[in-house]
Amino acid sequence: MTELTSEEIAAWDACDPLAPFREEFHVPEGLYYLDGNSLGALPRKTPERIRTLIEDEWGHDLIKSWNAHDWIHLPRRVGDQIARLIGADAGEVIAADTTSINLFKMLGAALGLRPGRGIIVSEQENFPTDLYIAQGLSSFLGGEHGLRMVPRSELNDALGDDVAVVALTHVDFKTGEVHDMAEVTRRAHDAGALVVWDLSHSVGALPVELNASGADFAVGCGYKYLNGGPGAPAFLFVAKRHQDDIDPPLSGWMGHASPFAFDADYRPAPGIGRQLCGTPSILAMAALEVGVEIATRVDMKELRKKSQRMGDLFLELVEGCGLEIACPLESKRRGSQVSLRHDDGYPIMQALIANGVIGDFRAPDVLRFGLTPLYLRYSDVWEAALVLKKIVETEAWRRPEFQKRQLVT
Amino acid sequence: MTELTSEEIAAWDACDPLAPFREEFHVPEGLYYLDGNSLGALPRKTPERIRTLIEDEWGHDLIKSWNAHDWIHLPRRVGDQIARLIGADAGEVIAADTTSINLFKMLGAALGLRPGRGIIVSEQENFPTDLYIAQGLSSFLGGEHGLRMVPRSELNDALGDDVAVVALTHVDFKTGEVHDMAEVTRRAHDAGALVVWDLSHSVGALPVELNASGADFAVGCGYKYLNGGPGAPAFLFVAKRHQDDIDPPLSGWMGHASPFAFDADYRPAPGIGRQLCGTPSILAMAALEVGVEIATRVDMKELRKKSQRMGDLFLELVEGCGLEIACPLESKRRGSQVSLRHDDGYPIMQALIANGVIGDFRAPDVLRFGLTPLYLRYSDVWEAALVLKKIVETEAWRRPEFQKRQLVT
Repeated sequence: MTELTSEEIAAWDACDPLAPFREEFHVPEGLYYLDGNSLGALPRKTPERIRTLIEDEWGHDLIKSWNAHDWIHLPRRVGDQIARLIGADAGEVIAADTTSINLFKMLGAALGLRPGRGIIVSEQENFPTDLYIAQGLSSFLGGEHGLRMVPRSELNDALGDDVAVVALTHVDFKTGEVHDMAEVTRRAHDAGALVVWDLSHSVGALPVELNASGADFAVGCGYKYLNGGPGAPAFLFVAKRHQDDIDPPLSGWMGHASPFAFDADYRPAPGIGRQLCGTPSILAMAALEVGVEIATRVDMKELRKKSQRMGDLFLELVEGCGLEIACPLESKRRGSQVSLRHDDGYPIMQALIANGVIGDFRAPDVLRFGLTPLYLRYSDVWEAALVLKKIVETEAWRRPEFQKRQLVT
Repeated sequence: MTELTSEEIAAWDACDPLAPFREEFHVPEGLYYLDGNSLGALPRKTPERIRTLIEDEWGHDLIKSWNAHDWIHLPRRVGDQIARLIGADAGEVIAADTTSINLFKMLGAALGLRPGRGIIVSEQENFPTDLYIAQGLSSFLGGEHGLRMVPRSELNDALGDDVAVVALTHVDFKTGEVHDMAEVTRRAHDAGALVVWDLSHSVGALPVELNASGADFAVGCGYKYLNGGPGAPAFLFVAKRHQDDIDPPLSGWMGHASPFAFDADYRPAPGIGRQLCGTPSILAMAALEVGVEIATRVDMKELRKKSQRMGDLFLELVEGCGLEIACPLESKRRGSQVSLRHDDGYPIMQALIANGVIGDFRAPDVLRFGLTPLYLRYSDVWEAALVLKKIVETEAWRRPEFQKRQLVT
């Protein structure tokens, strides 16, 4: 592999069946954008869709648009499209709120379905907001409720008969390591617990099989691999078998069986509908819909193949330059990202950004590079890896301007 | 007043100091839009602001925009602007999530500050989502928690020593009746309870004095009189004195003291910052900011004067046509709307809409007309009232096509 030439990489791109998708995105000239796992690129159709929504639907048709342009069904419509990406059925997914809020809903639902059990199990390397939500929820409920946070290797031992729910992120945000969803779900069920999967780093990045894995609940993010825009609405999944048994803790009017009856008493909508709470942002939902629609046209197996090949290429190219590999070497155990470790990871990332390679830094020492096969070429990965290698080898990151901390990393 | 002529009304418009604001909004030709209390009109600056945000900030600058375009501070920046409209100080308001979610946060906060008291008091005519959230929260917490729902006249009697918080909407969504905020707050405090005010039908519609009234908490809507767009982000207010004593039940990473440290333990941000939860939609926040900025340039006393005069005019014009008045006659007790009652309110509203007058119907029998002095003229109110009167008097609403129920009313 080390004898690879840029001509050979160009040949890979020329044969890439996913190459045409790049045309559907705006990718700035001269930028190697390896941060689509933090904020996905702009689909070319989004500006016009939003212009129409704002000027014609909001501006001209005003309140009538809730019926005339079917705004009222956007959360379900987008949810049904996302369902196709994650091995769920129509009516099992809805777009709503944020990943954090949706996780609160799903953990609350799980606790309600497992009376007498108060413990949420998670791993200490889970994405912080997942842990924070579990902590806040547990202390809000008090009593026997609590978060049991353990290293991944001790997850099975943590499954006592006090555990209501296991909350895990399918692809680790920092290391990119992939959980065996079916196996973890099976073990949790054997212990009498339910499972909530956070798919933020999975949806649109690799095939996911929620129903085939027996999953109970899931949440996920719209602004990463779904390209829904900054802070796009999130989504949630509830397996059909649980839907009508849930008493939603966040019981807003959009989840009411008949919101425009204006009854004084909450009566949850049947099915997934009760997982809505307040009025969703239609601008944000419409932008998400554009990104999701693209993903539904992608052969996820092809996407996964390209993503794995890109990761292998990147790791091969930076080998031996002084960066520790922080993600699984074996591509089938790795999500659609590459993670590397260096004590001076922060200034290295700043130097990269100054040189047109965008990744991100995850404290305390991880350099993270997202691989988004819909708009990245093998040649981009090649160039980015060579820039990184050079910066590390020449210690170009030692310059004072690269030490300055940004608010958002 | 009944001898008024359309020439006189035109003269009112000619002398209206707020008239220039109409130019800042897109108002469709030939439409009498009296539903800005349900969805505010489109500010003319919004399409270009959102185009720039999408194409330049998201499309071109991508992830760097969180720092470069200060996306990270949008919720606080918009919150500080809203604070000026509701008698709050900078740092007491933040834009976030939905009204329903924010009410959950504020009720949860209030319960946390009043240990040993589990009751939420509200009135049975409150907006349904406010009641639903209180119900869902109470049954989620269980035990001594509950919602005590009473008629407005019995609010004082409901203030037992088991009451943690009183949750009311300042301007009733259906009747437009205004609560005496200072008086109700004083009585609640005397009984040892806190107060959450829902300002959804107040903010941008009439002067509000939260701090002068001693209010503890408030929430409100961005898509009505703030003209933030369909499903715009909501906001919340926490009086400075309470901010650092709150353990947020919805404890997401954006409310962490140091979100990009990626600590495993939740540590709430100081002040209002801990009221954020997940990542906000930047598209939705930016659209809200445009609407709010307009409102900050308005003399709220002039706005109130025009709104009251419009309401008086409307009521005067429809007098005696067979509609029951469902809002206070006295303009100082009435929000920025007029409400009328008729057993056939639904088809009457459909007939109105077919004739270019947009109001809305609130089950079971209320016709609601929002008065938005920034983009409505006295002549619009005049025309709308005459159309309404004619439809009722000629029974034009009896035609079969007006009986058909829409999903969203």
